[in-house]
Amino acid sequence: MKDSATRIYESSIVVDGLIISKWSGELFSEMQQAGLTAANCTCSVWENFTDTVGNIAQWNSWFREYSDHIVKAESVADIRQAKADGKTAIILGMQNTSAFEDRIGYVEVLKTLGVGIVQMTYNTQNWVGSGCYESRDSGLSDFGREVVAEMNRVGMLCDLSHVGPRTSRDVIDESSVPVAYSHCLPSGLKAHPRNKSDEELRYIVDKGGFVGVTMFPPFLARGTNSTISDYVDAMDYVINLVGEDAVGIGTDFTQGYDTEFFDWITHDKGFGRKLTSFGEIVNPEGFRQLRDFPNIADAMAQAGWTETKIEKVLGLNWINLLDRVWDG
Amino acid sequence: MKDSATRIYESSIVVDGLIISKWSGELFSEMQQAGLTAANCTCSVWENFTDTVGNIAQWNSWFREYSDHIVKAESVADIRQAKADGKTAIILGMQNTSAFEDRIGYVEVLKTLGVGIVQMTYNTQNWVGSGCYESRDSGLSDFGREVVAEMNRVGMLCDLSHVGPRTSRDVIDESSVPVAYSHCLPSGLKAHPRNKSDEELRYIVDKGGFVGVTMFPPFLARGTNSTISDYVDAMDYVINLVGEDAVGIGTDFTQGYDTEFFDWITHDKGFGRKLTSFGEIVNPEGFRQLRDFPNIADAMAQAGWTETKIEKVLGLNWINLLDRVWDG
Repeated sequence: MKDSATRIYESSIVVDGLIISKWSGELFSEMQQAGLTAANCTCSVWENFTDTVGNIAQWNSWFREYSDHIVKAESVADIRQAKADGKTAIILGMQNTSAFEDRIGYVEVLKTLGVGIVQMTYNTQNWVGSGCYESRDSGLSDFGREVVAEMNRVGMLCDLSHVGPRTSRDVIDESSVPVAYSHCLPSGLKAHPRNKSDEELRYIVDKGGFVGVTMFPPFLARGTNSTISDYVDAMDYVINLVGEDAVGIGTDFTQGYDTEFFDWITHDKGFGRKLTSFGEIVNPEGFRQLRDFPNIADAMAQAGWTETKIEKVLGLNWINLLDRVWDG
Repeated sequence: MKDSATRIYESSIVVDGLIISKWSGELFSEMQQAGLTAANCTCSVWENFTDTVGNIAQWNSWFREYSDHIVKAESVADIRQAKADGKTAIILGMQNTSAFEDRIGYVEVLKTLGVGIVQMTYNTQNWVGSGCYESRDSGLSDFGREVVAEMNRVGMLCDLSHVGPRTSRDVIDESSVPVAYSHCLPSGLKAHPRNKSDEELRYIVDKGGFVGVTMFPPFLARGTNSTISDYVDAMDYVINLVGEDAVGIGTDFTQGYDTEFFDWITHDKGFGRKLTSFGEIVNPEGFRQLRDFPNIADAMAQAGWTETKIEKVLGLNWINLLDRVWDG
């Protein structure tokens, strides 16, 4: 007989708010086998419009080739259908607005092509605003305000995980629909430019927004010595601040990538100045790989979480957020 | 009391298989006021992918700004809804495959953005095949075969109006769904590189395809002295060859354009060698402008056409074709 956590996990909608792994048929199969219902999968980091569309065209052919494992998610209905079909729904996400270039019309074009979540800046300043590794953050630009309004109009979630503090606050204030940190950790547990203060975490949720909690080791207090229960503790830290209705998972799995990839993401625009060094990436014990996903429900149950709280944080909270932003 | 032709026109679905006019709110209003239910409107001629997407982004903003007059048509249901709403449904069409560049994935991407009809070549040779003004036509390239298969898969109509004869025959043979000349005239009425022989007209329809008849004066026997009844006679010439179920309208209205535009379309890739000279463009008397569209039903009735034949050629034949290609 299955234990309670396994039963809860299998019946739940499970959403991962950020994966940037090295995509392959094997990985898609692993995501599906792990019972992942939906994931925000990065299709653009430093790329311009044309290269991003090239990546989306590649995703389109993966959707055909691996249709037994994955489907494109453009609505909450698509995610619910994936759960019913036992597949993983892929939300195409950009971790930067570089693909919008200087053309507001590209926002709708990329939404039409399936992009549902977009981070306003990636680490450094762009046309929209500033990033978390930038020396000065002058906030959202005037073009950035137009981008937020257009993303609101077409139904694209504004993600602020790698965005600078002032730009983040501007986007939270400017947006007419909820916005999110899709994958972040509290600086109350470890001071780091990528981590968010208690005040920032409270502010986004006070304004109707959302916090996805990551387990990326460089931002965890115990780094590569962390365990899955440290990750659950980090979620509880956030939940104690903002309540259990606005928090979800955002792992930041980088599975399958080598040094070249980490060099690319840690240099400005892929090849410019060095922004940060991660050291070795070893995910928390018990949650090392995507196949370990079911363990998270066990760890939540062992932390004394109720069934309702587990279901909400596993995916229902993400679903409610996307429903308001995409279909609102 | 309305006369019979007016009554038939007003109750009919009216489809124009090719318009490349200078788009404006005034023009959209004129199309709607003229009772045009749907039109294949050119959004790319010599443009590459990025510039074509820029044009589509411009169309997206027109669809918002002029939503009282026009709507984007991505299905036959959209066209029927436009008829019910008294608006004009715009089918985004490309007159070239230059926007596909050398990337097969752009076919699906452009279909997703709303492009429903694509001409395989525009006058000269490209990666796909050869055009009607090219000295030699070696037929469909191997990449061209992949493009036809991909257009079939995603549901995009192959248009052969400006395509060379050998490439046209290859596409007709290669395609698994019907293809069309969206706007052409018979060379039996006037010898011209852009006009199609009786044999060619019969061949495409024998294979399940379609002929849209244009009234572009350089290709008409009487040129700028033509009248709307010459245009109806040209349609009857084609109907006598292929029957009344596979023929429709494809005006090629270039309303609002000046010399600069005609220079651009008559030079290879917009700026290369001169391919042809049109002289002055004056459309047939009685059908000079889009606002004259209702006159075509009168001219058909005066030619002794039955109500059924008028309805089919005005739009039902186009609808049946698009239904088979888009939703088949």
